[in-house]
Amino acid sequence: MNFCPQCGQPVIERIPQGDNRPRYVCEQCHYIHYQNPRIVAGCLVTQERYILLCRRAIEPRRNFWTLPAGYMENGETTEQAALRETWEEARARVQAQHLYMLFNLPHINQVYMFFRGQLAGQEFAAGDESLEVRLFSEAEIPWDQLAFPTIGKTLKQYFIDYQSNDFPVRMSDINWQPRLRGVTP
Amino acid sequence: MNFCPQCGQPVIERIPQGDNRPRYVCEQCHYIHYQNPRIVAGCLVTQERYILLCRRAIEPRRNFWTLPAGYMENGETTEQAALRETWEEARARVQAQHLYMLFNLPHINQVYMFFRGQLAGQEFAAGDESLEVRLFSEAEIPWDQLAFPTIGKTLKQYFIDYQSNDFPVRMSDINWQPRLRGVTP
Repeated sequence: MNFCPQCGQPVIERIPQGDNRPRYVCEQCHYIHYQNPRIVAGCLVTQERYILLCRRAIEPRRNFWTLPAGYMENGETTEQAALRETWEEARARVQAQHLYMLFNLPHINQVYMFFRGQLAGQEFAAGDESLEVRLFSEAEIPWDQLAFPTIGKTLKQYFIDYQSNDFPVRMSDINWQPRLRGVTP
Repeated sequence: MNFCPQCGQPVIERIPQGDNRPRYVCEQCHYIHYQNPRIVAGCLVTQERYILLCRRAIEPRRNFWTLPAGYMENGETTEQAALRETWEEARARVQAQHLYMLFNLPHINQVYMFFRGQLAGQEFAAGDESLEVRLFSEAEIPWDQLAFPTIGKTLKQYFIDYQSNDFPVRMSDINWQPRLRGVTP
């Protein structure tokens, strides 16, 4: 950040009065620019023992498989964001969805929230950001071609919880991984 | 937003190519400004059947009682944010904390996350943003002097769940309430 979005003057980085960390501040109009983590919301869409995965049409991790998910937008709930992303990327509708997995990714300032729900109807198709959308059984999951660590962890947990048919909400942290440098996990 | 934070030129509001909602964009350097919901993280700190509440020293809702909570910062996990806010506002440490209540507040672009945990040691005190910090039994809770709807809902749910000693993670939506216009719930 170089310029004040409010008045257009150059900003400087300093700790504002009464605060305890550096922010970009405008000495001219006193605007303070706060930067906060973003939420990535998505769905684990199931049909009996099958899971819906999307092959990414966009970078990062083009061609790798993912659960439909993306940045939550202003004016929506986390659940609405997850359902919207599922429609945009997999052209799928979801029913009976419940919050399931949360991940903190502090190294990239993200919090992931996955909802678990059943595919409504039989229809799905590749949206603009997907090359292909498919249902996978556990044996068919392309474990070495998953886009991000959050995806593999969510799928593994699901197949464990599926045994007991008990799906408590779980939260865990994923920290910086050297092999993923430069890639948004 | 009036000016591009990157190059300082005026921005315009339009739907970027490949997007589906208006953003502030810079025609000069092609910067796109995304705005996303923020996470408010906090703690429901308990000591047996007592709950720790803070009387706010700052607006909005100065003098009203709240659970310690505030905006999650970059570089931290939701849990770290909740514990930090509890230290800053109530000078309290928390042990054995678990994710408990999540609220979507789409009208103000916030997602609240409260962790439930026990007061570690006996110490607590008013931090800079609090006038007073106190332990309350259910009978003592100042229900008509709570700062925000999220606080009352979390406390009510806690006292219900306390009966069964079962505290599942719960998520609910709080929508715009006319009586709170101009106040951050």
